[in-house]
Amino acid sequence: MIPTPYLLFLGDAPDILAAKVAVGIRDWRPGHAVGQFRLPGCGADLGLPEMTLEEARAAGARTVVVGVANRGGVVAESWKAVLKDALGMGLDVASGLHELLRDEPDLVAAAKAGGATLHDVRVPSVKYPIAEGRERAGRRCLAVGTDCSVGKMYTAMAMEREMRSRGMQATFRATGQTGILVTGSGVPLDAVVADFMAGAVEWLTPANDPGHWDLIEGQGSLFHVSYSGVTMALIHGGRPDALILAHEPTRSHMRGLPHYGLPTLERLRDTALPLARWANPGCEVVAVSVNTQHLGEDEAVRCCEEIEGRMGLPTVDPYRHGAGRLVDALP
Amino acid sequence: MIPTPYLLFLGDAPDILAAKVAVGIRDWRPGHAVGQFRLPGCGADLGLPEMTLEEARAAGARTVVVGVANRGGVVAESWKAVLKDALGMGLDVASGLHELLRDEPDLVAAAKAGGATLHDVRVPSVKYPIAEGRERAGRRCLAVGTDCSVGKMYTAMAMEREMRSRGMQATFRATGQTGILVTGSGVPLDAVVADFMAGAVEWLTPANDPGHWDLIEGQGSLFHVSYSGVTMALIHGGRPDALILAHEPTRSHMRGLPHYGLPTLERLRDTALPLARWANPGCEVVAVSVNTQHLGEDEAVRCCEEIEGRMGLPTVDPYRHGAGRLVDALP
Repeated sequence: MIPTPYLLFLGDAPDILAAKVAVGIRDWRPGHAVGQFRLPGCGADLGLPEMTLEEARAAGARTVVVGVANRGGVVAESWKAVLKDALGMGLDVASGLHELLRDEPDLVAAAKAGGATLHDVRVPSVKYPIAEGRERAGRRCLAVGTDCSVGKMYTAMAMEREMRSRGMQATFRATGQTGILVTGSGVPLDAVVADFMAGAVEWLTPANDPGHWDLIEGQGSLFHVSYSGVTMALIHGGRPDALILAHEPTRSHMRGLPHYGLPTLERLRDTALPLARWANPGCEVVAVSVNTQHLGEDEAVRCCEEIEGRMGLPTVDPYRHGAGRLVDALP
Repeated sequence: MIPTPYLLFLGDAPDILAAKVAVGIRDWRPGHAVGQFRLPGCGADLGLPEMTLEEARAAGARTVVVGVANRGGVVAESWKAVLKDALGMGLDVASGLHELLRDEPDLVAAAKAGGATLHDVRVPSVKYPIAEGRERAGRRCLAVGTDCSVGKMYTAMAMEREMRSRGMQATFRATGQTGILVTGSGVPLDAVVADFMAGAVEWLTPANDPGHWDLIEGQGSLFHVSYSGVTMALIHGGRPDALILAHEPTRSHMRGLPHYGLPTLERLRDTALPLARWANPGCEVVAVSVNTQHLGEDEAVRCCEEIEGRMGLPTVDPYRHGAGRLVDALP
C-alpha cells in the first residue's frame, strides 16, 4: 500500500499527455491528490492547487507520486533535488518509471535519512502464492479485449465509480502501474514471474462479501501473442463471474504487431468464455465496452448500436455514455 | 550454455528417484556424462564410472551437475566440500535446486578463486525480448497436455532421438530445469517475468533450416489454472506447426488441484488448436502421446487403441512403443 493522499509531481512534463498517471489519479481518485508540484517549464496543468513540499505536508500529503513519464522512463536529474527534499522531510516517493528509484543511491540515502519509503510499482513487493483455483465468496468482473490498450482499465474504473454511486460494494483491482499508483495498491502483473501470475491475481481478488464486486483491470489480449499468457492468468486467477468484451473499432492491426489483424468480437467471446468457464462454470459474457475516441458522436452511437444488434449484448462507450448499462448488465 | 561433459554429483541421494536430473542426463545425453560422484551412504547408482574430481577432470569433465534433489531444494552442507573442491579446480557447478548456488558465499568465493562459473538453471540468465509473433523458417512441434506432468518432456526427448536416428535435423528445446541441465541450455520458463514469456520462447526457437524441427518442451496445461498462462505463452511464442496431445489416462484430477477434473482429449484439441492457429494458421494436431506407466501391458495397448479410434490420430506411449509413429505423423 502506498500511503495517501499524494502530492502529484509533474516535473518538467511538456504537456498533459506526458502526465497520464497524474491525470488518472485526479480523475479517478480526486481525494488522493492534495495538489500538484511543477518544475519551471512544465507544460502540464491538472488544475489542482500548486504546492510546495512544505505546503503539501501541511495539507496531509504522505507520498509524492511521480505522475509523469519521459522518454526511456528515467529518473531525471532535474527531478532528483525535489524528490530528495521530499524524502528528507519524511514523505514517501512512488514511481512507475522503468528506472527504479531504489537503484538511485542518492534517493536511497535520502529515504533512509528521512525515514521515508521508496515505492517502485513496476516491481512486485509481495511473494505471491501459486494459484489454487478455488471458488471464493464475492463476485468478480474482468474486461477482456480484442487487443491491448482498448480501454479495459477505463471500463473497470468507470464501473467502480458507477457502482459506488449506486451504493454497491465495488473495488477496482489494479494490475498495472497506472492503476496501482491511482488506487495505491495492486499487482504489477507484467512483472510477476510466470509461475505466480495466476496466484497473484487470486491474491489480489480474495474472498469478500457475497454482494461485493471486484472490477479487475485487464491486461493484454488472448489474441496479442506477446502478452496472451498474462491475459490467460487473469482469466484463470481472477475466476470472473462476468466478462466484458472491450474493443477499439478503428484499430487496423494488433498493437505493435502490424502483421496481425484483430479478432472479431464473436471470436473473442467464443475463445474467452470457455476458458473462463473452466475455472468458473457460471461465468457469462455480459456486455461490450467500445472505445470510440477516434469516432465522431454519430459514428460512435451507430457503432455501438451495430455491435449491440449483432452481439445481443448491451454495448456502450463508458467514456461517452457512462457505465450505467455495463453495471446494469452484471448478473 | 553449461559447458559439457559433466560429472554427475549424486550426493547422498537415498535412491534413484531422488536423482531424476542425473537419470535424465544419462538417458538422454549419455555423451554428456563422463561419470558419477557419490557420497558415503548414497543409495542411487547410475551405472556410470565412479570418479574422483581429479579423474573426472582428466576425463574431460568441465561441469559438476548437482543431479539430485532433496526436500526443500537446499544446497546441503555435506555436499559443499565437494562442490568447493570442484570449483577450486576450475570445474563449473550447475544446479536446478530451489536454493541458489549464487546465494552461498563460500561457493561464490570458491568459484572466484578457481575461475569457475556457478550455473543456477532456475534463474534466467538472458534478457529476453518481447515476442513479435513473426513467421520464421524451420518447423516446430509442441506437446500440450490435459494436465501437468503427463510426459510432455519425455515425448519431445523421444521424438528428438528418433528423428536424429533417421538423419533428420531435430533439436529438443528445454523450457524447464531438468531439460536445461540435460541439454546444457534452454529457458527456465516458469521463472521468466510475465511480459517476456512468449519472447523467451521465440528466442529459444529461432529461424532455422527449412527442414529443421524444434521439439519444444511443454509446460503446464491450458486447463491447469495455476500455470495456464505459461502454456499459452508456449503456444503463441513457439508458433508450432504440429501439436501433440499428451495425456495420462489414470489421473483422476488436475495435479495439485483435487477440485478440478481433467479435460477430455477432444476438449484439449478444440481449445489448443484455434489458439495455435491464431499465430500459425497452418498448425495441425498430429498425434496423441499417452503416458501408460500406471497401466499393464494389455491395458496400455487397449487404451492407445481406444484413443486412436476415437480421435482419429496416431496414439502411442513413446516409452513403451517408441516415438516412431509420432515422428511419422509430423507434416
